[in-house]
Amino acid sequence: MNWINILGLVAATLTTFSFLPQMLKTWQSKSAKDVSFAMLIFFNLGIFLWLIYGIYLNALPIILANAVTLFFNLIILWFKIKYR
Amino acid sequence: MNWINILGLVAATLTTFSFLPQMLKTWQSKSAKDVSFAMLIFFNLGIFLWLIYGIYLNALPIILANAVTLFFNLIILWFKIKYR
Repeated sequence: MNWINILGLVAATLTTFSFLPQMLKTWQSKSAKDVSFAMLIFFNLGIFLWLIYGIYLNALPIILANAVTLFFNLIILWFKIKYR
Repeated sequence: MNWINILGLVAATLTTFSFLPQMLKTWQSKSAKDVSFAMLIFFNLGIFLWLIYGIYLNALPIILANAVTLFFNLIILWFKIKYR
């Protein structure tokens, strides 16, 4: 695997799993007051489009990053709705 | 411009500007308690690597998205440090 794909996979891993601590924090604290609802809506929509973009280009780092990011952020959105 | 670049630019615009409402909310409320510090650190680091990835591939949507996202998220990180 050439270095640019490795860079993409490292970037994808960092940005993707960065939402795990946010998900856990919101789940544990049962509080999402400071997390912007508008951000979650637009971000989830955008990540969904990035996923289509990655699939079309067959770019593995983009596909992996956005599929998992979408999963985490839909859960954070659900917590935001649940805990307000 | 072909449709896949338009899709990338729309995805980039959505994910990038989704952080604007989070930045404004944190700035107005002077509160970032519910925003995960670990998320901001890993996310900013990952976005920086995505920026290098986009520059190397000369992919305009990826470059634009990540340069502006990095800008917004560094400000949110600064607010998080400032307002805790």
